[in-house]
Amino acid sequence: MYPKADVVAPAVTAVFTAVLTEGPLSRVRLARRLGLSSAAVTKAARPLIEMGYLHELAATERTGPGAGRPASPLAVRADREFFVGVKITADELIGVVCDLCAQVRTAIHRPLTDPDVEAVLTELGHLVDELLDSPGGYRARTRRLGLAVSGDVDPTTGLVRYSPFLRWHNVPLRERAEKLTGLTVTVENDVKALTTAEHWFGEGVGAESFALVTVGTGIGCGLVIGGRLVSGSHGVAGEIGHIGIDANGPTCHCGGRGCVEAIAGTDAIVGQARQRSGRPELTFDEAVDLARRGDERVGAVFARAGNAIGCGIAAVANLVGPARIVVSGEGLAAYDLFETHIRAGFERQAFGAAAECPLSIRPLPFEEWARGAATVSIQALVAS
Amino acid sequence: MYPKADVVAPAVTAVFTAVLTEGPLSRVRLARRLGLSSAAVTKAARPLIEMGYLHELAATERTGPGAGRPASPLAVRADREFFVGVKITADELIGVVCDLCAQVRTAIHRPLTDPDVEAVLTELGHLVDELLDSPGGYRARTRRLGLAVSGDVDPTTGLVRYSPFLRWHNVPLRERAEKLTGLTVTVENDVKALTTAEHWFGEGVGAESFALVTVGTGIGCGLVIGGRLVSGSHGVAGEIGHIGIDANGPTCHCGGRGCVEAIAGTDAIVGQARQRSGRPELTFDEAVDLARRGDERVGAVFARAGNAIGCGIAAVANLVGPARIVVSGEGLAAYDLFETHIRAGFERQAFGAAAECPLSIRPLPFEEWARGAATVSIQALVAS
Ligand SMILES: [Zn+2]
Ligand SMILES: [Zn+2]
Repeated sequence: MYPKADVVAPAVTAVFTAVLTEGPLSRVRLARRLGLSSAAVTKAARPLIEMGYLHELAATERTGPGAGRPASPLAVRADREFFVGVKITADELIGVVCDLCAQVRTAIHRPLTDPDVEAVLTELGHLVDELLDSPGGYRARTRRLGLAVSGDVDPTTGLVRYSPFLRWHNVPLRERAEKLTGLTVTVENDVKALTTAEHWFGEGVGAESFALVTVGTGIGCGLVIGGRLVSGSHGVAGEIGHIGIDANGPTCHCGGRGCVEAIAGTDAIVGQARQRSGRPELTFDEAVDLARRGDERVGAVFARAGNAIGCGIAAVANLVGPARIVVSGEGLAAYDLFETHIRAGFERQAFGAAAECPLSIRPLPFEEWARGAATVSIQALVAS
Repeated sequence: MYPKADVVAPAVTAVFTAVLTEGPLSRVRLARRLGLSSAAVTKAARPLIEMGYLHELAATERTGPGAGRPASPLAVRADREFFVGVKITADELIGVVCDLCAQVRTAIHRPLTDPDVEAVLTELGHLVDELLDSPGGYRARTRRLGLAVSGDVDPTTGLVRYSPFLRWHNVPLRERAEKLTGLTVTVENDVKALTTAEHWFGEGVGAESFALVTVGTGIGCGLVIGGRLVSGSHGVAGEIGHIGIDANGPTCHCGGRGCVEAIAGTDAIVGQARQRSGRPELTFDEAVDLARRGDERVGAVFARAGNAIGCGIAAVANLVGPARIVVSGEGLAAYDLFETHIRAGFERQAFGAAAECPLSIRPLPFEEWARGAATVSIQALVAS
């Protein structure tokens, strides 16, 4: 170890991150943006250019009037390296290959019949092979695999401590997946992975603080504050789904009362819609259908759910004041039923200027979760 | 400007902060703690010693077996400089003189008959004079004044944008107070000032993340995440009082419904206690008295309030997962009536390991707010 490494390495990471997330930047702009000297930027960029991650675009701008040398912006070579990302759910694996700029190049779904660890790992091995061998020739330029799992995950050890939907306890997922695939593996909680993707390559780019709220079976939240993902001193953070917003509301599986998830999670909505419609076999999709066709009783269930979500989001805005909030998730396939009620609940409970926080409410393309997993592995490369 | 200053200044601040908040530390420990070389620590400490802020204690430990030179811990000279702190409320000024370690040396209350800006400034001038001339000879060694005000305050400009209790709009408080006193003035929101005091000199020392919840007429919260006070991208943060925890609860002055403050703020408690007891003239102190003497109707009001506060605190723990939470404020003079209910509400709504977050529930000595204001001015010195 050179003593120099400590000084140079953070600059390399900073330059790589800035070009990756903010697009082509000249050395002059990079220096200004990162508070580094021009010499430090040039020094930090050199290994990245040598390794082929960055390249110089044709000169397009001059550093100033009379400046002799034109500044050639640095840009990312997106196809220098590829990354596999897989979201593991109880009934399917969703896999993608992304390039260095987190663009999805190919995506594959694979149904699971059994969330048992061994069965899932076998399927994961097949899926990764299929992705790497798909047209595009990814195998030769892929060294990393990102996995995303819902529940309590330790990204530093790659251990899945507890995943309720998968019924996994203390699964050393990174170790197992590295042996299986030969790739360098990252493991992250799915909501945090998605937040990372949005923070680096989506609406959160450049935001000092940012929140992503996911709506579906669970209702989760990823928070970036001061440019860093909040992970919680006791291992819990972003649990917007278990904020109590109705003191006399339904009890929740967590033991709380009137939790957002107990009112607005997919299961809660189905339960209430069955009760209100008197149809005990009603599915979520059927409930959506009824509400869209004007059924007032079922429509009221979505209205209440949207209000609960909006109220929870207002709690996030009131407490930490993120620059912007994205609301997404598979539940928002029905966002036409939710949106006005989410906004109404948010506006009612957001305090003063917190109401100025922009909300983006939009459905989530299916492969987005897997892209989040891949993004975490891109981030691991950049930090290394 | 030397180019060197950029490198040395942060190290000086880091060394000063560490010794100030964590007590006497040897250079070896400082180097390890701050990730600096021994030479860098020695260099950073030199100006602080020369200016008299730090001094070396007698050598008490050796750097290791066989190490020749004993390590003399660096300690703060608490009486090197004094700081005036004043909390401005609608009906009184509370002023203190603190030493460099934020120990209160003297405290004075001054009633206000009128929250008008000019009247308050006149009284502030008298109060500062009285504090500086009190026995102790503070005037010669005091250069800084910290002011704390409830409401929307811009600490960078020293402007009080809006203070509801004082009915102040856009008061350039720093400018006015600097002209008036000749001191260097900091202005901060009162809850944030108190959080700073607790983070630097109280239960928050050394915590990566930390929350302070204040209970009184207003219910507020200061949040430290990643070692920094959260201020919110839209100027709003820590508004725990306006989290909606009861969808069918009372409307709040903010326009929300079932806000924590609308259930557990002092005014809300008095209102409910009057209704339940049928005594329309009841004061807060009389309500406390009735509840302590076993009045079940009024006791239930405090129980409901405590539960609401606990539910709000659980939202903080669920979302950002602070290492610890302190609950305090003038409302907690009656904390015997609140404590079990705050804990019950918290435990019900805290999700999983978030319930492990330690809660300190304790009343707040009256001069603590003013000490918070002084702490912000100590912090400004250290950063300068
Ligand atoms: Zn819950
Ligand atoms: Zn309110």
